[in-house]
Amino acid sequence: MKANIPESNQERIVIIGGGFAGLTLAKKIAKLDYQVVLVDKYNFHQFQPLFYQVAMAGLEPSSIAFPYRKLFQTEKRDFYIRIAEVTGVDTEKRCLKTSLGILNYDHLVIAIGADTNFFGNENLAKHCLPMKSMGEALHIRNEILTDYEYALSTTDYEERQGYIDVVIVGGGPTGVEVAGAMAEMRKYILPKDYKELNPKEVDIYLIQSGPALLKGMSENASKSALKFLQDLDVTVQLNSRVTNVDGEFVYLKDGSKIKAKKVIWAAGIKGNTIEGLPADSLVRGNRVKVNTFSEVIGLDRVYAIGDIAYMEEGDVFPQGHPQVAQVAIQQGKNLAKNFRNIQKKKPLKAFAYKDKGSMATIGRHLAVVDLPRFKFSGGFAWFVWLFVHLFSIIGTRNKVIVFINWVWNYFTYDQSLRLIMKSKAPDTKEAKENEVV
Amino acid sequence: MKANIPESNQERIVIIGGGFAGLTLAKKIAKLDYQVVLVDKYNFHQFQPLFYQVAMAGLEPSSIAFPYRKLFQTEKRDFYIRIAEVTGVDTEKRCLKTSLGILNYDHLVIAIGADTNFFGNENLAKHCLPMKSMGEALHIRNEILTDYEYALSTTDYEERQGYIDVVIVGGGPTGVEVAGAMAEMRKYILPKDYKELNPKEVDIYLIQSGPALLKGMSENASKSALKFLQDLDVTVQLNSRVTNVDGEFVYLKDGSKIKAKKVIWAAGIKGNTIEGLPADSLVRGNRVKVNTFSEVIGLDRVYAIGDIAYMEEGDVFPQGHPQVAQVAIQQGKNLAKNFRNIQKKKPLKAFAYKDKGSMATIGRHLAVVDLPRFKFSGGFAWFVWLFVHLFSIIGTRNKVIVFINWVWNYFTYDQSLRLIMKSKAPDTKEAKENEVV
Repeated sequence: MKANIPESNQERIVIIGGGFAGLTLAKKIAKLDYQVVLVDKYNFHQFQPLFYQVAMAGLEPSSIAFPYRKLFQTEKRDFYIRIAEVTGVDTEKRCLKTSLGILNYDHLVIAIGADTNFFGNENLAKHCLPMKSMGEALHIRNEILTDYEYALSTTDYEERQGYIDVVIVGGGPTGVEVAGAMAEMRKYILPKDYKELNPKEVDIYLIQSGPALLKGMSENASKSALKFLQDLDVTVQLNSRVTNVDGEFVYLKDGSKIKAKKVIWAAGIKGNTIEGLPADSLVRGNRVKVNTFSEVIGLDRVYAIGDIAYMEEGDVFPQGHPQVAQVAIQQGKNLAKNFRNIQKKKPLKAFAYKDKGSMATIGRHLAVVDLPRFKFSGGFAWFVWLFVHLFSIIGTRNKVIVFINWVWNYFTYDQSLRLIMKSKAPDTKEAKENEVV
Repeated sequence: MKANIPESNQERIVIIGGGFAGLTLAKKIAKLDYQVVLVDKYNFHQFQPLFYQVAMAGLEPSSIAFPYRKLFQTEKRDFYIRIAEVTGVDTEKRCLKTSLGILNYDHLVIAIGADTNFFGNENLAKHCLPMKSMGEALHIRNEILTDYEYALSTTDYEERQGYIDVVIVGGGPTGVEVAGAMAEMRKYILPKDYKELNPKEVDIYLIQSGPALLKGMSENASKSALKFLQDLDVTVQLNSRVTNVDGEFVYLKDGSKIKAKKVIWAAGIKGNTIEGLPADSLVRGNRVKVNTFSEVIGLDRVYAIGDIAYMEEGDVFPQGHPQVAQVAIQQGKNLAKNFRNIQKKKPLKAFAYKDKGSMATIGRHLAVVDLPRFKFSGGFAWFVWLFVHLFSIIGTRNKVIVFINWVWNYFTYDQSLRLIMKSKAPDTKEAKENEVV
């Protein structure tokens, strides 16, 4: 087996990863005079900002995922998609090693994004639930629902606490949004679906190491988010830190412990890795160091964009950009322009990030929005959040389906997606592991 | 851990299985003066007639699945749901052994349905793809899409055939519907999503042991289905039979073989089993023999309804009823009436099946419908099929979402649900097995 891309008289650009950065780039250069190959281990683009709604059974995966082949159906030219794991790169021979075989490139764009960072702690990696892919979000949903079921059949108070309590680690947007959504599930769903459970016994903890939530956003946003979560009865512990997890208890640095089987880890990310990149092109957080043209330092015709890239932008971002969707999208666009400039033999354009603001939602009528000129929170912020996210989702059908789901949930206070669902292979062994308990 | 159902001064009816039979019964008796416990291994009702659309990426699982807890939210009385595997029954002590512990009953209703029958052939069980649960339908979807991806990177003609050809075994409604849906995917989707593949190289085989398709339906329906499938370029082999499968080839009784990794097995079902039932209450196909009141022969206060039940209905159905949804629903309703009669000390009502007809869809504007008085096929039959199925799906939101999906597909000839999607646990071993290739 080999990657099997036809020879072309055009230069070949290989893009690894179809997240916000890679997908934006691919869309923009599909019509230029290059042969383009998009490689990803999944066959669909994932809309990461709404993973938490998949995890909380508010949306289906298909509503916020879009198959690459469908996205590029209308590209009539030299454009190829390969679903493969990239295992290494040889920058001298200009080729990738993939699960489908060797893939040569003339230009390589690394847009492999970031994954959960457990900072080398094996217990955390073993017992915590990360949420950096759709599959992981689905797994969290299955675990929460399965544990509620176990809790019904558990007469021991302490044991039941282990099943129903949840600890969320990390006070960034992901942690805040998960905590808010869980609190709303407890408030609106639990009393109807699980009448036998006492919602007052269900505790939701949000552990943040720093002194404020939503680091990087305004003080107004941090304080509003804290208030909104406390109003929803989330136990927010600031200046705290998880030191260990063993599947039964969560241990904090002040010596206390919380009985909880489920720990959702949103406390750090690190760049994904590809073997073969020189060690000195990697910096803190496993990011790949690039110049302002997104060229990897020390390598020829190799670029990095999005969460994986570390670019110092003069005095504005001397420590690199935040690892958010907007940076990824804008870097994808800028690199596309530069591929056009290369062809036209024009000078390259340096990247300059334009901050459009940031936002996070906590719950119904509760969100915080920081725009460059305005900072606001509450009901209007929530509608702004809904509007911006709805229009960022790819595909008209997806927009329609998400819109219907949201309107439905808004008026009924209730979704109907609480399925414990797994794909099941016929082979007995896998079937058993995937079996619903 | 134990099942943990509160004591009640009402008699307890335990229903195992929430398919068409069990769910209909549960809904009808929820308001009677019994304590009712519904036990199922899944936390949702599955609308089996549309599994094939999930397998063919036409619908999402959540559109045709409905969580039991949501369904019974409005029941205010002595009603309990337990998600558990039932491992055995003790009809003397009147209790069930379940994965959650012992569960006592006063009345037991066995509505555990049927599973795929490989007739003891281990190779078939190992290599074929069954489609009797949502998880299995999702698995078929993942396999088909993954193999198309492999096919792109395969330069060897024979090897590629193995990835792209599909053999469907069984010419009943399931086999016919899967074959038709696959043929439409080849016709409308493949040329757009997989431009590098030649649709003419993609072969779809439907193997039927008998001389006609859709056994049990009218001759008109059989012939129309055959014609529709042949017009869609499905290779239908009547009077044929699969003798063996090894993951590479499918061997037929005439000595020929077909190169195909994917074999969808829809050629037989057998009743699911519970340990502890006396051997003489089981008949052919592992069904549980009942009298016309759905009482299991030889047992007291134990009933069986739906696909698992074998009931001889006088001269009308001397060999038992067909294992279809309508029989299950009607048996559920009749048993509910009899539970009411028991309470009112009225005589029991014998079951009498009222055949409302049957139908199968082959593709766009192509279906066959047998009503008691009319038999018709083609475009109008297709709209009848759509209408009947849409209104049989539980839940308004589900109806709306399925309707939007169908209208969308109708006008665009294209869904956007072709995601290779699996739930992913953090634990490395399972994560690896679930990893997308």
